[in-house]
Amino acid sequence: MAGLRSLYKDEAEPGLKSNFDVDYVIHYKIPTQDTEKAEAEAAFIQLIKALSTVGFATEVRNGGKSSLLVFTKIASDKLLNNQVYRSRLQDWLYGVRIHAPNQDVNKYFEDEPVSEAERLRLAYLLITKPRNEGGAGINPKTGQWKNVSSIFPLHDHNFNRQWIQQWSKKYYLEEGDITQIRDRFGERVAFYFAFLQAYFSFLLFPAAFGFAAWLLLGQFSWFYAIVNCLWSVVFFEHWKTKETDLAVQWGVRGVSKIQHPRPQFQFEREAQDPVTGEAIRVYSPFKRLARQMLQVPFALACASVLGGLIVSCFAIEIFITEVYTGPFKQYLTFLPTILLTIFMPTLQTLLTQLAERLTALENYETHDAHQASFVQKIFVLNFITSYTPIFLTAFIYVPFGKILVPYLDIFQLTAQKFTAQGKPLPTKSWEINPDRLTKQVIYFTVTAQIVNFATEVIVPYVKRKVFKAVEEVSEKKNGNGDALKQQDLPEEADFLSRVRNEAELDVYDVTVDYREMVIQFGYLSLFSVIWPLTACSFLVNNWVEARSDAMKIAISSQRPIPWRADSIGPWLNALGFLSWLGSLTSAAIVFLFNSSKQDGSPWDISAWGLLLSILFAEHIYLVVQIVVRNVIAKLDSPGLQKERAQRFQMRKQLLEQTFGANAGGQEVELETDGPAVRGGEKITRAALEEEARQLSTKGGGSPETLFWLRQRGADETIQIGRALISEVSESNSNKTKVATQ
Amino acid sequence: MAGLRSLYKDEAEPGLKSNFDVDYVIHYKIPTQDTEKAEAEAAFIQLIKALSTVGFATEVRNGGKSSLLVFTKIASDKLLNNQVYRSRLQDWLYGVRIHAPNQDVNKYFEDEPVSEAERLRLAYLLITKPRNEGGAGINPKTGQWKNVSSIFPLHDHNFNRQWIQQWSKKYYLEEGDITQIRDRFGERVAFYFAFLQAYFSFLLFPAAFGFAAWLLLGQFSWFYAIVNCLWSVVFFEHWKTKETDLAVQWGVRGVSKIQHPRPQFQFEREAQDPVTGEAIRVYSPFKRLARQMLQVPFALACASVLGGLIVSCFAIEIFITEVYTGPFKQYLTFLPTILLTIFMPTLQTLLTQLAERLTALENYETHDAHQASFVQKIFVLNFITSYTPIFLTAFIYVPFGKILVPYLDIFQLTAQKFTAQGKPLPTKSWEINPDRLTKQVIYFTVTAQIVNFATEVIVPYVKRKVFKAVEEVSEKKNGNGDALKQQDLPEEADFLSRVRNEAELDVYDVTVDYREMVIQFGYLSLFSVIWPLTACSFLVNNWVEARSDAMKIAISSQRPIPWRADSIGPWLNALGFLSWLGSLTSAAIVFLFNSSKQDGSPWDISAWGLLLSILFAEHIYLVVQIVVRNVIAKLDSPGLQKERAQRFQMRKQLLEQTFGANAGGQEVELETDGPAVRGGEKITRAALEEEARQLSTKGGGSPETLFWLRQRGADETIQIGRALISEVSESNSNKTKVATQ
Repeated sequence: MAGLRSLYKDEAEPGLKSNFDVDYVIHYKIPTQDTEKAEAEAAFIQLIKALSTVGFATEVRNGGKSSLLVFTKIASDKLLNNQVYRSRLQDWLYGVRIHAPNQDVNKYFEDEPVSEAERLRLAYLLITKPRNEGGAGINPKTGQWKNVSSIFPLHDHNFNRQWIQQWSKKYYLEEGDITQIRDRFGERVAFYFAFLQAYFSFLLFPAAFGFAAWLLLGQFSWFYAIVNCLWSVVFFEHWKTKETDLAVQWGVRGVSKIQHPRPQFQFEREAQDPVTGEAIRVYSPFKRLARQMLQVPFALACASVLGGLIVSCFAIEIFITEVYTGPFKQYLTFLPTILLTIFMPTLQTLLTQLAERLTALENYETHDAHQASFVQKIFVLNFITSYTPIFLTAFIYVPFGKILVPYLDIFQLTAQKFTAQGKPLPTKSWEINPDRLTKQVIYFTVTAQIVNFATEVIVPYVKRKVFKAVEEVSEKKNGNGDALKQQDLPEEADFLSRVRNEAELDVYDVTVDYREMVIQFGYLSLFSVIWPLTACSFLVNNWVEARSDAMKIAISSQRPIPWRADSIGPWLNALGFLSWLGSLTSAAIVFLFNSSKQDGSPWDISAWGLLLSILFAEHIYLVVQIVVRNVIAKLDSPGLQKERAQRFQMRKQLLEQTFGANAGGQEVELETDGPAVRGGEKITRAALEEEARQLSTKGGGSPETLFWLRQRGADETIQIGRALISEVSESNSNKTKVATQ
Repeated sequence: MAGLRSLYKDEAEPGLKSNFDVDYVIHYKIPTQDTEKAEAEAAFIQLIKALSTVGFATEVRNGGKSSLLVFTKIASDKLLNNQVYRSRLQDWLYGVRIHAPNQDVNKYFEDEPVSEAERLRLAYLLITKPRNEGGAGINPKTGQWKNVSSIFPLHDHNFNRQWIQQWSKKYYLEEGDITQIRDRFGERVAFYFAFLQAYFSFLLFPAAFGFAAWLLLGQFSWFYAIVNCLWSVVFFEHWKTKETDLAVQWGVRGVSKIQHPRPQFQFEREAQDPVTGEAIRVYSPFKRLARQMLQVPFALACASVLGGLIVSCFAIEIFITEVYTGPFKQYLTFLPTILLTIFMPTLQTLLTQLAERLTALENYETHDAHQASFVQKIFVLNFITSYTPIFLTAFIYVPFGKILVPYLDIFQLTAQKFTAQGKPLPTKSWEINPDRLTKQVIYFTVTAQIVNFATEVIVPYVKRKVFKAVEEVSEKKNGNGDALKQQDLPEEADFLSRVRNEAELDVYDVTVDYREMVIQFGYLSLFSVIWPLTACSFLVNNWVEARSDAMKIAISSQRPIPWRADSIGPWLNALGFLSWLGSLTSAAIVFLFNSSKQDGSPWDISAWGLLLSILFAEHIYLVVQIVVRNVIAKLDSPGLQKERAQRFQMRKQLLEQTFGANAGGQEVELETDGPAVRGGEKITRAALEEEARQLSTKGGGSPETLFWLRQRGADETIQIGRALISEVSESNSNKTKVATQ
């Protein structure tokens, strides 16, 4: 991957060397309208005052293109430490940390130093938190801060260079590599790479097995389908454990409970929190439910719009490639692809915007809830666009093709009108094309992945280079760029021009990468029985994916805000859903196509056989899932073990503090006047009971007191017990004697 | 229920008045063999010494029938308080309690007094815990203690009388009634009654709806099936929340994490616990897994043995009632019932014993794991015996009857041999009896419930009375009973004779009652679509059931050891399973029988239609379950709210202790020399930067220091920012001017 490394070849570029201790850069747009100038100035003053009040040092520079760059850093170590301590204390109170922070602050920060991710996260929270929670309340592009276009940390290019170089040389990423990511970019990004790595390792098996199956079993093998389903169950359950394990190791287990409020949340009324007694802002859950209901028409709209487009293109394609034999066939073949390429991205962008609007309309209190709801919609969208073509071929085109193809005459009739000759178009008699399904799967699992890589990495890179060149030319013409450079102080000029570049970069969105991987997993789970080499293709793709995603973060995006996370969040459900659906589709595909191979015609299938095999497959899947879950739960994960050990230590310490060293429970304090075993003076039962009786006649106590006074001490109980045993034994043996006599 | 109350009519019976402060009675059998006398004596001495060492006061009395009664109580309040404090501290450390016990012990026990259940539980643990954990290590019928036949607490008959009287007068049990049970008999028994009560309340709806459906919709209505499934989902999900809620209210949430080791556990080797570092006893999990695998042949054995018996009786019954027309028909009709009544209980007892053996073989470390595994097996057993007959009728007899009945000729041929006349038996041509299914369901949901009630309550009561009478007669003949009474001290005689009675009673097993209710729920969920009045019958039955179970505990059983629990345990899974299976069977039954009503013959069904309706029903069920679960999760339960409020209070207190009163985060300590907003003296940007430049030329610092020195304080940043904004605005407006000119 020398090509990747060369992107960072400009080692000596001076602007990349240092970040000048900057924590965050605030990109402040100056409105071009003269009328808004006063307002912008006032807001700018507010901005600097707000930052200064919560303890940020500020520096302002010209940002170019009618904008300012406000550089901020947490002014004092004391403030930073205060924030870190407070945050860790909160973690402990919410059960995220096991040990309370040490009271001796200096020693504490020596033992547990502050990572870069932690500092940046707390600084970001300090900037964005509402004022009544001690923050500056600055949120880009909202209300008062509409001129603040972004708040971003600066890349640590020394680290990035090293990172990309290391990864491009390595075949296999280790846990240490992921931990490195975590310390720089936070747990949320680290979880993505951990997931990608776990998925990559797990792909080794289906790649090897798939290759063998492809050689030996061929397509549509039920054996491959079973192994593949089993694998997806094991992978899913393993990841769930691995996820918890990582969360424990990174000390973030349960952070999803600590919610960040969404500043965009609009409340209806204030109410008293039944838990905290504080005033909280409430939005009626019924109204939200009503708005959530809009997801149903949204899903239907997606299905009909995208599905309609896909079905139309599909029909046109079949007509042209398999029925039509007239003129221009070689050009017309591209028609459906052209239609798809034009309309699909447009529709997808529109629907994604609609999804964003809908999610905003649902008006969630917290970031996480908002994000989860958005992810759900995006998943529906991507599910439809990614899998519908294959579903159509497998479950409509092949089994019902003979019934449906005659309806394609519509195209013929339409086309006739345009050709205006009134003659029927030349067609050939139609036969189901059995290779179509396989070709489609290969397209989606190989070609589409490569296209994806290109659009994700190469296109933005080229685009940026081109834009840059154009800009430089136009700036040269205007003399703007040079003017800016001349204004800058010479020792800062390189740094500032680099920051101006970073301000123009995209924000890195981990959701996009998760989506890609989850959809990919879906192809494997749902359709790999059609083409067992699927996993091989994905294995290669994902090796590159991990590196190209790293590059995307390091070079093509602003440095992400290092958020914490304790799982891959809503994508987990999507994975589980796809894994489950895989059991259904695999069974159905095997049933439909395996038998079709034998008698040549896929049409003569029995509906009840199909349903029975689906029903069976699904229930076997569910049972296997329960079994795998239990087996995996039995295997102890190192992270959970560590957590339990820590908890145990804490308990033991506390118990020792309370009960002294021997806290196991061995020694029990006995009262000296208690009924311990006393030395054995010979006492007769009669004498003792006589004593008690005397006490009672003297009116010495209630029956309860007397009852417990008859045998004073264990020795007396033993003696009387022995006497009773002897008595009973004697009478027993007497009885037996009587009986035997 | 005047009859129930009259059982306690003997209010004046003197032995029931007081328990003489006894905590536990240990029933010690004296072996009848003379040779074992010495051993029994030695063991008895050990027993008393062990009790005395851990701090119990002891009294021994003659138990009658060759046994001793050892009365014990915790000798001192200090020891008891010590135990309670330790146990509550442990609860806190395991997260069961939210607040740590107060250090001021006296005040603490005033605030949170010790309930009877708590005292008895701790006393029992003190008796049974191994010696190295501070207990006396006495476990009935094991090893050294083989002569200890039972350890039981004494009934509080004053409470019991009041309890039974109250409940028999009430139509509806309230939360207070359940809490009362909890304080006396512990959370494990209380959870059963809470479940029974929740189930009873929930039955009101299907009873009313079922009655309406029976009047208006008739049998096999798909609408009833849907409503019934929905109801069972709602009930199941509601109970899960209710259960957590109760656990929080009772302060036992999470107690299932505090495990009691099983004394019967046999270890293979000792190892070091990776968590605690202590020596632990290990049994290979693979060996256990291998033994758990025996559950599969066990389930198959149950299915074949019980299923075989049921199928045979079923076949005989059909032959005799529906085919056979010969002599003795009126007597032969009873043959299958007789066969079932003879063989079924025997087989069930045998298989239950086998299940016990198997579970013991699986060798679990803890009581809970052992119990859960046993419950699983018992559930399989009961599932087969309870539901197979109806399954047979619905899914074999009706759809395949015409094919299978001719094979019943076997009986004809067999019978011919015995009649020895060689003539074929007189038979009639067979037709499927469509009422058979309904009759069967009515039998299981009405008749069987009544029979069950009789065998559970009335039979044991009568049996005990009869045994008692026989015993008294025989004792009178031998003069034994009188001799015993004469030996007793007069003020104790009544009390002792009552304790001798209680020692003979059965141990109350809450599992049996749970099983009954869960199996009953199964009839409702699986088959009530056949006869919608099912829920009405159960409603009446369960009203009586709650009272008769109370009576069973109060009168026919030893007082149960008040164990804690935080849920209904393994039965929850059984409920979920039955609720899910209900969606399948209801759909299948409605499909089979609803259509059969229309065209008269149930045979002409399409297999794919059946499978499709099952597939649909199941997936709708699963979707509904997810929806209901989410909706219920949204509704805040009072218990969880209380818990959260407590946790919040604790956090707030801790934060206040650490950061002072204003811990919300409002105020942030600012360094006095930090970059706060300073008063605005007029500074020009040029002058300032000149200053910095001078500093740099003097070698005053690194570029990083200098960068942050250029604008000293927020005021300077603001001024320079304003200057920049003006500059940019000007150049913008110049540009527009140029453009417009």
